[in-house]
Amino acid sequence: MERLIFTAPLAGLISLTFAAFFAKSILKEDAGNKRMKEIAEAIKEGSTAYMKRQYRTIAVVSVIISLLILFLLDEGLKMAAGFLAGAISSAAAGYIGMSISVRANVRTASAASGGAGKALKIAFRGGAVTGLAVIGLALLGTSSLYILYGDADLVVGFGFGASLISLFARAGGGIFTKAADVGADLVGKIEAGIPEDDPRNPAVIADNVGDNVGDCAGMGADLFETYVVTSLAAMLLGSLIIGTYKNAVLYPLMLGSAAIFASIISVFFVKVEKEGKVMSALYRGVGGSTVLSLIAFYYITGFLMGDSRFFYVTVAGVVITVLMVIVTEYYTSKSCRPVKTIAASSETGAATNIISGLSAGFESTLVPAVVIAAGILVSYFIVGGSADPGTGLYGIAIASVAMLSTAGMIVALDSYGPITDNAGGIAQMANLPAQVRKVTDELDSVGNTTKAVTKGYAIGSTALGALALFADYRNKVSLESQSISLDSPVVLSGILLGAVLPFLFSAVMMSAVGKAAFEVVNEVRRQFREIPGIMEGTAKPEYGRCVDIVTKAALHDMAMPGFLAVIIPLLTGFFLGPEALAGLLTGLIVVGFMLALMMDNGGGAWDNAKKLIEDGYYGGKGSEAHRAAVVGDTVGDPFKDTAGPALNSLIKVVNMVAILFSPLIIGGGFL
Amino acid sequence: MERLIFTAPLAGLISLTFAAFFAKSILKEDAGNKRMKEIAEAIKEGSTAYMKRQYRTIAVVSVIISLLILFLLDEGLKMAAGFLAGAISSAAAGYIGMSISVRANVRTASAASGGAGKALKIAFRGGAVTGLAVIGLALLGTSSLYILYGDADLVVGFGFGASLISLFARAGGGIFTKAADVGADLVGKIEAGIPEDDPRNPAVIADNVGDNVGDCAGMGADLFETYVVTSLAAMLLGSLIIGTYKNAVLYPLMLGSAAIFASIISVFFVKVEKEGKVMSALYRGVGGSTVLSLIAFYYITGFLMGDSRFFYVTVAGVVITVLMVIVTEYYTSKSCRPVKTIAASSETGAATNIISGLSAGFESTLVPAVVIAAGILVSYFIVGGSADPGTGLYGIAIASVAMLSTAGMIVALDSYGPITDNAGGIAQMANLPAQVRKVTDELDSVGNTTKAVTKGYAIGSTALGALALFADYRNKVSLESQSISLDSPVVLSGILLGAVLPFLFSAVMMSAVGKAAFEVVNEVRRQFREIPGIMEGTAKPEYGRCVDIVTKAALHDMAMPGFLAVIIPLLTGFFLGPEALAGLLTGLIVVGFMLALMMDNGGGAWDNAKKLIEDGYYGGKGSEAHRAAVVGDTVGDPFKDTAGPALNSLIKVVNMVAILFSPLIIGGGFL
Repeated sequence: MERLIFTAPLAGLISLTFAAFFAKSILKEDAGNKRMKEIAEAIKEGSTAYMKRQYRTIAVVSVIISLLILFLLDEGLKMAAGFLAGAISSAAAGYIGMSISVRANVRTASAASGGAGKALKIAFRGGAVTGLAVIGLALLGTSSLYILYGDADLVVGFGFGASLISLFARAGGGIFTKAADVGADLVGKIEAGIPEDDPRNPAVIADNVGDNVGDCAGMGADLFETYVVTSLAAMLLGSLIIGTYKNAVLYPLMLGSAAIFASIISVFFVKVEKEGKVMSALYRGVGGSTVLSLIAFYYITGFLMGDSRFFYVTVAGVVITVLMVIVTEYYTSKSCRPVKTIAASSETGAATNIISGLSAGFESTLVPAVVIAAGILVSYFIVGGSADPGTGLYGIAIASVAMLSTAGMIVALDSYGPITDNAGGIAQMANLPAQVRKVTDELDSVGNTTKAVTKGYAIGSTALGALALFADYRNKVSLESQSISLDSPVVLSGILLGAVLPFLFSAVMMSAVGKAAFEVVNEVRRQFREIPGIMEGTAKPEYGRCVDIVTKAALHDMAMPGFLAVIIPLLTGFFLGPEALAGLLTGLIVVGFMLALMMDNGGGAWDNAKKLIEDGYYGGKGSEAHRAAVVGDTVGDPFKDTAGPALNSLIKVVNMVAILFSPLIIGGGFL
Repeated sequence: MERLIFTAPLAGLISLTFAAFFAKSILKEDAGNKRMKEIAEAIKEGSTAYMKRQYRTIAVVSVIISLLILFLLDEGLKMAAGFLAGAISSAAAGYIGMSISVRANVRTASAASGGAGKALKIAFRGGAVTGLAVIGLALLGTSSLYILYGDADLVVGFGFGASLISLFARAGGGIFTKAADVGADLVGKIEAGIPEDDPRNPAVIADNVGDNVGDCAGMGADLFETYVVTSLAAMLLGSLIIGTYKNAVLYPLMLGSAAIFASIISVFFVKVEKEGKVMSALYRGVGGSTVLSLIAFYYITGFLMGDSRFFYVTVAGVVITVLMVIVTEYYTSKSCRPVKTIAASSETGAATNIISGLSAGFESTLVPAVVIAAGILVSYFIVGGSADPGTGLYGIAIASVAMLSTAGMIVALDSYGPITDNAGGIAQMANLPAQVRKVTDELDSVGNTTKAVTKGYAIGSTALGALALFADYRNKVSLESQSISLDSPVVLSGILLGAVLPFLFSAVMMSAVGKAAFEVVNEVRRQFREIPGIMEGTAKPEYGRCVDIVTKAALHDMAMPGFLAVIIPLLTGFFLGPEALAGLLTGLIVVGFMLALMMDNGGGAWDNAKKLIEDGYYGGKGSEAHRAAVVGDTVGDPFKDTAGPALNSLIKVVNMVAILFSPLIIGGGFL
């Protein structure tokens, strides 16, 4: 039984091998004509340059933090080494995601001339490379470090490294992609009246770079972190009940290994036999990995835990995933009420479009909150309940680990979106025949849905995972402190401080996007004014200037949120004590969950309301309603692609800070 | 000492007498020419008709609920009688506010031809009538019932009645006023290009009615309820420490009585000596009542409590008020960064205007959260702390009672706004000379600031008051239940459910406004189309149709939120138990506080960003930036005047439900 643990790093390595294998098969494909290669090269250069500068900035921060860990904590060396390993692995996950995307995009565009089938295969396998690399690295890192250190508590440094880098990647990438996107749209589509991805727009390369560094790299780092941190939470809670369930630490790692094999097999399920069935092909992949995982979970549970109740908990986790996906689809799909209402209200102008979009976003928090509340109650009471709260909390953690069973596929789906988006952009810029663009548009429209759906998944798994982390924190400080009761004004003020963090953080993110987009607009206006011949297509715009502007803005503006995420929990712990910090974590998790839902779903709904009008409803493209819907879509961009996703990382970073530094915080507080 | 308690109802009666005296002095003023009287009559008729229908609906609900109370609770008769008394008093407070406003408006317009001095006096005294009536009724009702029943616990019914009616009034009035306003603006200002308050707009009377039934009546009911519920929370917590401080129940009532006298005296401080000093005249009133109250608090504390630490707590309450006012001014004032940023970002269109407005709203939650967190810690630790938590919680309640010392003035300031707004509308519609409109505009621009500031005050006092209510609930259920610890998944799921309520509630409110505004737009478009001569001024629009549309919408859409506010806490308590309900209250208070801040401040900032542009900055009136700013202002309308203020009532209703029905909930929960 002891040796079984080596399955986990082995599964991680196998996953990485398959990722490499798929990557190689993609690189063999045709990269298109000279013009396409040129464009793809420009996107690749911009992306690589940004990623390098982003990681250089992060490296400085990481070294400082690892020194702090080294000197402040017991076992500082192991913790600091773990932190650096986590940071480097997260960076690697992001870098791999970006690298494959900037190569798959042009090959997808090239294959699209032969129809949807092959283009889908390339785009999806490009996503699968990122997916398998992310979960492979995550399981490899977590399990190796656990084998090496022999103590789950010492793996916390690894988790902290992963989540801190993911916060930076989400914040920086999110600001980059949306500042470029909003800037390009405002001046190109609205002012100059040129289509999206038009090569005459000086911000067009920055916009395409943004897809890769924001969505692909950012999502990669984010899900890497979710995977690591969630498994870790289960291992930590498992180590407390090892007296009753001796494999409680091993169990989550084995569930993760099984899910990896299920994901690898399911990649082969995704192919289009008939035209126009792209979405069902993709769902076949997700469904396949879910079913295969559940079968494996059944046997693993029997073998390791000898208690079928844990299997029901994994089923609960899978059910939560399914429900989160359904809710997200409902709120963001063109065929359901919310998007239709927003589109209809665009007929009376931008103001009513915004009001109904915000209202839909607000409303969309209801079902997920009930689902997560029910999920934690069910998981807790199935295996433990008040008679055995320790096992109950472990049950919550196992449900969130079960949610990860689809993580590989989810990352694949999410990375698929920007690849097809880029492919469309390249087709447009390279003046490929309209029929090519039609194929990439078909693939891309599905990409919008998958992106929205994966966000719903990410939020749900974050909420559940964070509650498990909170239980870990609670255990770490409970030894020397009193009960964390809602009676206490100290706890209540902690909750208030925690609740304000997501609002503050979103404000910073959104105003960063607003400011940088404003600069992009001015630069584009300047180029239109000062470089004659751009609009006629006789002169080439200076694409690099716009890339530069958003790069600087992203690097500059990601620093403060990252700093706040580390320093605020520490200050709260030191000055107000561990109870206040517990309150802060609670407020942060709950409010962060709500705001992330509201922003992601609201943003997705606005996006698709615009698309519904473009499909010819409510006046169609070019109507007043369409102009109003473009406003909503532009507001939704930083909601769904900057602030919303970054909140997930924020929630986990702050929890990891609390857990990591809990030894210093115990006994803190001057009250 | 025992007899001292009769001071409270006496003070209430004196306050009502002064309200009547001021009302009489206003009615003596000149009500303008025939045309003005006609217009004022139309507004009055519309307002009275709406209020009657609103109260008829509420009466049905109230009778049902009082029957439930009668049969379900111990001492049901006293509770039900109290409930009805609270409901009727709240309705009276709202009705008085509406009645005086619809009379003061036209007299203010008439007086404005003689300069700002007299017009300000009439408008402010109109507001003061509402202010003194509200606090007079509140203190009279609360203290009389306490004297009659001899037990603070039995006064809870009165508080519940007050808060339930206030929720209906806020929700119904808020939907009415903003549906009319948004509808009138969308089709009048944006489509037809006619100015605000133009008599050719068929929705113009509905818009002016809205100011009276939404802002005056709604605010009156809201502050009545805040006053009652906050005093009650202090009395309930006071009854628990009566062993140590024998006057702990009497003390909050005496503070309230002192504040009433301070408010009456301060009404006379408000007069304009020189032109253009309107705001400082108003602040003199608020400052006067604060200083006089504090002096009285010092002596009352010495006399009743013999412990000067309670005086420091009242000072803390006043400091919280001042800080909340400063923060609100900062975020909504034309001379500070947030509004300037929003105005500047309007230059790149509606989307960036919305992004920066939302971002400002999000950011504006930070300082208030810190202020309230610090406020509860300071109040708790000054008088009690962990050594004496009961007195500490009472300290928090006393700080919130001290915040009420300015309530009369605050209501006066808030009601002043709609009166001047209406006066401007009447001047416009009656074609009075431009110079008259200039005077009313000057008064009105101050009205916008005072409305924003009073909202900041209302949110702060709600948060602090609600935390005191929460402590009451906690005491009521603690006897038979375990500690309410954040460890428990039951508590955590309660927090999640509570956190989702404000989002759900805001979604319902906003979409109600959106839908009704849409209907108004269609009706106005129809009238423009079908009634020839409207635009030329030769035919009169059918004003009544628009009033009808918003009346129906308001009555229809206020029902569901009110129902949810009562039923959800009951279901949570019954099925998940008292701990889950405690979690729900916490989540509701914290998230409701954040969202209310975000909506009120964001809405105020959008409003003033538009005004700043209209002052000639960033392109001025009629520019692209101005068009973008109008979009922001329209989005902000349901934020700041419908959903935001109604959240305050929601928070307290749910808390009152929990306290009132706590005997039924103890022992609830199937887990």
